[in-house]
Amino acid sequence: MKKEEVFKKIRITMTKKLSKLNILLTNDDGIYSEGIKALCDSLSQIGNVTIVAPDAERSAVGHAITLSDPLRVKEVKRNGKFFGYATTGTPADCVKLAIRAILKKKPDIVISGINLGPNTGYSVLYSGTVSGATEGAILGIPSFAISLATFENPDYAFAADFAKKLTKIILDNNGLPQGTLLNVNIPAVDSKRIMGVKIVRQSKVAIKERFDKREDPRKRTYYWLTGEIVESDGQKDADIEAIRNNYISITPIHCDLTNYDFVKTLKKWKV
Amino acid sequence: MKKEEVFKKIRITMTKKLSKLNILLTNDDGIYSEGIKALCDSLSQIGNVTIVAPDAERSAVGHAITLSDPLRVKEVKRNGKFFGYATTGTPADCVKLAIRAILKKKPDIVISGINLGPNTGYSVLYSGTVSGATEGAILGIPSFAISLATFENPDYAFAADFAKKLTKIILDNNGLPQGTLLNVNIPAVDSKRIMGVKIVRQSKVAIKERFDKREDPRKRTYYWLTGEIVESDGQKDADIEAIRNNYISITPIHCDLTNYDFVKTLKKWKV
Repeated sequence: MKKEEVFKKIRITMTKKLSKLNILLTNDDGIYSEGIKALCDSLSQIGNVTIVAPDAERSAVGHAITLSDPLRVKEVKRNGKFFGYATTGTPADCVKLAIRAILKKKPDIVISGINLGPNTGYSVLYSGTVSGATEGAILGIPSFAISLATFENPDYAFAADFAKKLTKIILDNNGLPQGTLLNVNIPAVDSKRIMGVKIVRQSKVAIKERFDKREDPRKRTYYWLTGEIVESDGQKDADIEAIRNNYISITPIHCDLTNYDFVKTLKKWKV
Repeated sequence: MKKEEVFKKIRITMTKKLSKLNILLTNDDGIYSEGIKALCDSLSQIGNVTIVAPDAERSAVGHAITLSDPLRVKEVKRNGKFFGYATTGTPADCVKLAIRAILKKKPDIVISGINLGPNTGYSVLYSGTVSGATEGAILGIPSFAISLATFENPDYAFAADFAKKLTKIILDNNGLPQGTLLNVNIPAVDSKRIMGVKIVRQSKVAIKERFDKREDPRKRTYYWLTGEIVESDGQKDADIEAIRNNYISITPIHCDLTNYDFVKTLKKWKV
């Protein structure tokens, strides 16, 4: 083969490899959120991005899916250009719909976010953002959820850039184990103050919650859940502690909920 | 102390102990379902039962909680007698509401069910029934979910009786580890054909699903999720395999989703 032909072949292979990278984005803040826009802008630099996201906010929906109702899908524009598919479903519905009905082939990676607010500790169980990535993992696709640990004045630029970097790292390492996803939290400080990355466990921290008991204008009682995030479970190797110290936290989480240690104990009980 | 006084004291202690057993029931099939009625009838034999359940079916809501809307609570009668509290929330909301707003003191046990249909494999992640018990575990109360592995002609009697037996066993063993609950599935066969109890792991089985693409009367497309339960993941020690062989399956599951094995691998990646 001539030198020119070899170069041509390399170029074709590289182009193919780049064009082959298909990225699916979802979230739970809805398709019109700023977080998913930042993610799209950043990930578009390294692959073909498809967005399938809820048509409005679906926070704290956990791993809900829609069985009793039909799902609608609508093409959505942002800034006058086609942006993605909005659905009437949850983040988990969106990923299912994307893979089973919208996309022609399975994506190489599923990314859910960027969420407004952290997803650490037991909150992971309630998180729609995490559940989008969980669904990807169930369907055998490398997946991660990414959240920005603030509810005010979010600057998604650093998180979006980190998502791009992490995507490349995951694919360079041949993906993730079946049924395992990454839960990423970015501290909400200026990027210069970010100390690095910590691989951590999920903390054992629940939101310190209570119900406001109120009366509506017709004097009927209603309850509204409220509470504060607890800042630490007193141990160093956990998600919440990493964030508190300005580290990016990455927690590999999996869909096998079995408590294997307790399986052994339980076998000794006389059931 | 005189003999008569000793007997009196023993009687008071025993009565106290019995009256002290407070049981909270919830489900995801709704407060009017037959499954929760059977559970109530059975558990009332050993303690004070309080029911806080969704006002209608909330299947596949996962661990959803209601943040953006207020919750309503209504007292519900069945057969002319006060039965329990119906809420506009999810099973997780119900348990939160019960413990934070309705009950005067924490219950001794939370039981969620009896669900119509099995909760095995990855379906556990989608299950509203399991999430009711998960919320109990997060709040530090021994909890279990119980499901009957059929969608047709359910006979809840055996499952309800087993729930009563298991409640006693759990409390006799001083409860469950913090953040761990039991996921129980009862095979839907005549009680004489039930082979016994197996302590098993969650199987790695997802529902084999697809979307029906349809057109509404106005010619607009909609999608409806459908699928079949896969019968085995090819391994013997799993929930689905136990049920298939007519064993009651008990899987201890926990709220710490960390994949600890993969934490070690991930630390070697250059992130």
